[in-house]
Amino acid sequence: MPREHSREAAVTDRIHLDALNALDEAGFVAALDGIFEHTPWVARDAFASRPFATVTDLHAALTRAVEARPEAAKAAFIAAHPDLAGKAARAGDVAPASISEQAGLGLDRLSDAEYERFERLNGAYRARFGFPFVVCVRRQTRDAVLAAFETRLAHDRPQELATALREIGYITRLRLVERVEGPGVPNVAGRLSTHVLDTHRGGPAEGVRVELHEVGASGRALLKDTLTNADGRTDTPLLGGDPLRVGTYELVFHVGPYYAARGLDLPERPFLDAVPIRFGIAEPEGHYHVPLVVTPWSYATYRGS
Amino acid sequence: MPREHSREAAVTDRIHLDALNALDEAGFVAALDGIFEHTPWVARDAFASRPFATVTDLHAALTRAVEARPEAAKAAFIAAHPDLAGKAARAGDVAPASISEQAGLGLDRLSDAEYERFERLNGAYRARFGFPFVVCVRRQTRDAVLAAFETRLAHDRPQELATALREIGYITRLRLVERVEGPGVPNVAGRLSTHVLDTHRGGPAEGVRVELHEVGASGRALLKDTLTNADGRTDTPLLGGDPLRVGTYELVFHVGPYYAARGLDLPERPFLDAVPIRFGIAEPEGHYHVPLVVTPWSYATYRGS
Amino acid sequence: MPREHSREAAVTDRIHLDALNALDEAGFVAALDGIFEHTPWVARDAFASRPFATVTDLHAALTRAVEARPEAAKAAFIAAHPDLAGKAARAGDVAPASISEQAGLGLDRLSDAEYERFERLNGAYRARFGFPFVVCVRRQTRDAVLAAFETRLAHDRPQELATALREIGYITRLRLVERVEGPGVPNVAGRLSTHVLDTHRGGPAEGVRVELHEVGASGRALLKDTLTNADGRTDTPLLGGDPLRVGTYELVFHVGPYYAARGLDLPERPFLDAVPIRFGIAEPEGHYHVPLVVTPWSYATYRGS
Amino acid sequence: MPREHSREAAVTDRIHLDALNALDEAGFVAALDGIFEHTPWVARDAFASRPFATVTDLHAALTRAVEARPEAAKAAFIAAHPDLAGKAARAGDVAPASISEQAGLGLDRLSDAEYERFERLNGAYRARFGFPFVVCVRRQTRDAVLAAFETRLAHDRPQELATALREIGYITRLRLVERVEGPGVPNVAGRLSTHVLDTHRGGPAEGVRVELHEVGASGRALLKDTLTNADGRTDTPLLGGDPLRVGTYELVFHVGPYYAARGLDLPERPFLDAVPIRFGIAEPEGHYHVPLVVTPWSYATYRGS
Repeated sequence: MPREHSREAAVTDRIHLDALNALDEAGFVAALDGIFEHTPWVARDAFASRPFATVTDLHAALTRAVEARPEAAKAAFIAAHPDLAGKAARAGDVAPASISEQAGLGLDRLSDAEYERFERLNGAYRARFGFPFVVCVRRQTRDAVLAAFETRLAHDRPQELATALREIGYITRLRLVERVEGPGVPNVAGRLSTHVLDTHRGGPAEGVRVELHEVGASGRALLKDTLTNADGRTDTPLLGGDPLRVGTYELVFHVGPYYAARGLDLPERPFLDAVPIRFGIAEPEGHYHVPLVVTPWSYATYRGS
Repeated sequence: MPREHSREAAVTDRIHLDALNALDEAGFVAALDGIFEHTPWVARDAFASRPFATVTDLHAALTRAVEARPEAAKAAFIAAHPDLAGKAARAGDVAPASISEQAGLGLDRLSDAEYERFERLNGAYRARFGFPFVVCVRRQTRDAVLAAFETRLAHDRPQELATALREIGYITRLRLVERVEGPGVPNVAGRLSTHVLDTHRGGPAEGVRVELHEVGASGRALLKDTLTNADGRTDTPLLGGDPLRVGTYELVFHVGPYYAARGLDLPERPFLDAVPIRFGIAEPEGHYHVPLVVTPWSYATYRGS
Repeated sequence: MPREHSREAAVTDRIHLDALNALDEAGFVAALDGIFEHTPWVARDAFASRPFATVTDLHAALTRAVEARPEAAKAAFIAAHPDLAGKAARAGDVAPASISEQAGLGLDRLSDAEYERFERLNGAYRARFGFPFVVCVRRQTRDAVLAAFETRLAHDRPQELATALREIGYITRLRLVERVEGPGVPNVAGRLSTHVLDTHRGGPAEGVRVELHEVGASGRALLKDTLTNADGRTDTPLLGGDPLRVGTYELVFHVGPYYAARGLDLPERPFLDAVPIRFGIAEPEGHYHVPLVVTPWSYATYRGS
Repeated sequence: MPREHSREAAVTDRIHLDALNALDEAGFVAALDGIFEHTPWVARDAFASRPFATVTDLHAALTRAVEARPEAAKAAFIAAHPDLAGKAARAGDVAPASISEQAGLGLDRLSDAEYERFERLNGAYRARFGFPFVVCVRRQTRDAVLAAFETRLAHDRPQELATALREIGYITRLRLVERVEGPGVPNVAGRLSTHVLDTHRGGPAEGVRVELHEVGASGRALLKDTLTNADGRTDTPLLGGDPLRVGTYELVFHVGPYYAARGLDLPERPFLDAVPIRFGIAEPEGHYHVPLVVTPWSYATYRGS
């Protein structure tokens, strides 16, 4: 799963909602080609609902076009999506260090056991439902994708059709936001931020090294390695701009060197040195604020806002 | 470093301080043989200070006997100790799982890099001071032993003589406590305890799985895997009875399953699942109380008492 | 409400459960006189259930004797209790300081407004139910008694008969525990404790002045003024031995002088000086542990165990 | 002390620094009349340092003009200030309720004991130093003014001259900011803010009533009574725009009704109802962020940022 770059689509020329509203049917369908894969009837059916006041309304109309079709058409539409198998690959003898990259753990670098699990689940899914497993990979870590397989394999057909279409809704919303500009753009970005408060001295902790890791079943990936500024925050959000990926993460706050530099009388082996905060992200478009309130002998964290 | 068993010495018959006080010099020296290695002059010099009111006084008198000698004699006494090299071994191709044992990480299972570091440091130490590196291994993790080498190599000779004798003081105090019973036995045991408070429901958290790991540079060892009882504590201390080993540890509290079992309306991927608390132990005879005050969305810890 | 002293009854000779079990009916009734007011049929009816294995069983048998009677007999039994009005008095021009006494706020020292409220509620209660308002005053603060009037006036007759008998159950349980000794004595005592942890220095806070106040609508009463010991606790529980009184309380921790004495570089007017923790007690026989985890710039508290 | 209104001066026409820089000496002195009381030599001496790049530079030049004078001139300059006695008054039989006003406790509403203390201290100060007690009352609560008397009476003459001039610096800085606009205006405003995080449900607490009180030796004054918004904050800072007044404050968070409204299964008398956070403000131009992280069974606060 080489992380898809949300910025990439920006290379394509974006179209303004007003311009889109003014197009004839053929133009409208052409302008939206690729959003709902290459299924022209979706845009065609939505065309009647013009003009759209907001980008959100446009996406809702496109989604309704799919929802309005009978089950067989929906299944055929889902079946038009590519199989995730094309993205999966085993890491082979990739050196451990090289899986620590900015991009997180990817489906293209599965361990042998994970790859076999992936193949087995992917095959079982297609056998059970007759269409490929569709998931908005930009909202999921590798571990979350594998976990979703298991959950969704237990669905009955109507549940799973709904689930697959909901995922297609997420995929197409992201694509639409990158293609169409104008009023009422839906929020597709989440945010992860932190704040280090030093309650030993009574102010923000400046210069604390903070690492952010994705934590997967078969490894970890360093996503960010930064320092707190004078306000105890990071200059840019730890994650932001894109959806957050459902998954497990760990922040590591290096408070040992911070306090050592402040010249406190602490043991050579301090009580607190690298403080890990492990947490799950469940809402890709949510704001996760995960602060650390710390002294050399205590700390607290919480989901803030 | 196959962990030395403090209970082992209990196999030998213990002698009461009163009986020891009543012995003649030859008997006294024989009774204490092996405490200060096999150096009979230590007990002989301390014999004059009889009777000893407490075991602590006895140890102090033995220690003073060494302290009173000139530097050359001290160095010779230190040199009579076995070289730590006899305890060190590389793990070879030991399977990763097998280093996770109750006993912690040992000097007998070093990674290749650690073994080479050990050999180099041990050689440098002996070359610099002319006597083997003596450390009370029962008060140290493997990582702390390796770190101590570096610190102590930077000492000048008087500093290092004092350090080595202090370590011998710790070794002999442990041996003496196992050999002699009676009043005024010095405390040689530390304690690590925890307590899980659930401030979501306002009471102790029962049935939370708690793991304790030793965290070393080249691996982790699971030391304990237990459950909290109705008072939110563990039925026995996490560590106790012996000195704590200076080192880095991690408690992992499995609060995800605990809250899931309580039927709360939480995300499928909870914000908090396995909560790690990483901390250093610097005082082998201290009491470390490391509680967790937790909700599904927050937690706090501190060094308690 | 001059606080009834639970120890008072100890002056009367206590009888052992074995001795009580061995008495004939007349002796048994005489021995329990005064427990269920002076209503001999209660003990008489329970006599048949001898012998009692535990004091708890004895109390249950006495309670069942009342429960078994028809409603009219229950009401008559309740009506045999003295009116609370005999305990209430207005404070008149009592100096403010004198209401701060060890004993808490009492029904005998009501403000004019409270006295009028009391009179009005007491009259309304008797008019509504035809029997006096019975409450186990040893389990209630003055404010809680006044609040209970309002709650119970809204009851229908069956609800209120049940409530009054439950209160009589609390009263008689306390009396029985003071009269009869033996196995299976029910717990009638609650406990309030605290613990001050200084996470600025990483250990218990010794020598912190701690006040405990009862907080009533018309004033406060200082119940305890003490210091933390070397373990950061108070040498005796803040409250204990008796039931806790349902009500609102405030602990005030004087951390300003504590940190000033430690010589920290803090502002002349410190951020934290007298730290109040206000909390409600709802379970008279419960254990309330209310710790303070504090630095000069932060604190936390929780209901602990 | 009827709180001086910082906005009041805005009624007078403000002058831009550029315009001020362009004036001749007489105009310059006239434009600044009233800033350093009515002492024209201060502006006259500073005139030579024109042009001023920032308002801060202008204030520094005016201050230096005073600092450069010999001690006798400084004392005479201080003596030109009005006596604080003109602001002090006893509250007499003012009803208790009326001291709870937006404006805080004032020097014009002292209790009898405080008034006598004020008179005694004010007389002693003038007798000791020969000039009136000058303090920037807009940066002080009543209690802080009275405390400052005691501290400053213990000064020797050079210390006290420096202290009085520093207070005049604060007074004149406030006046200057209200008179002169332009670049480099010094910060004269502090800020108090809060944030209520509900870690029981994992998000901001909306609709929590928050009161802010000034806490004085002889009473309390309600300064603000507001509700938290959807982000758990107050729509406007609790205090801001002006300097904060050095003193003791209490925030009261009404979490009992908040949790009751959420329909949790809590005791009728909740553990936490009105949660007071008492704290001192020592830096009038500082930002005090005092959050509450709360569940029905726990809370924490700290000086945040």
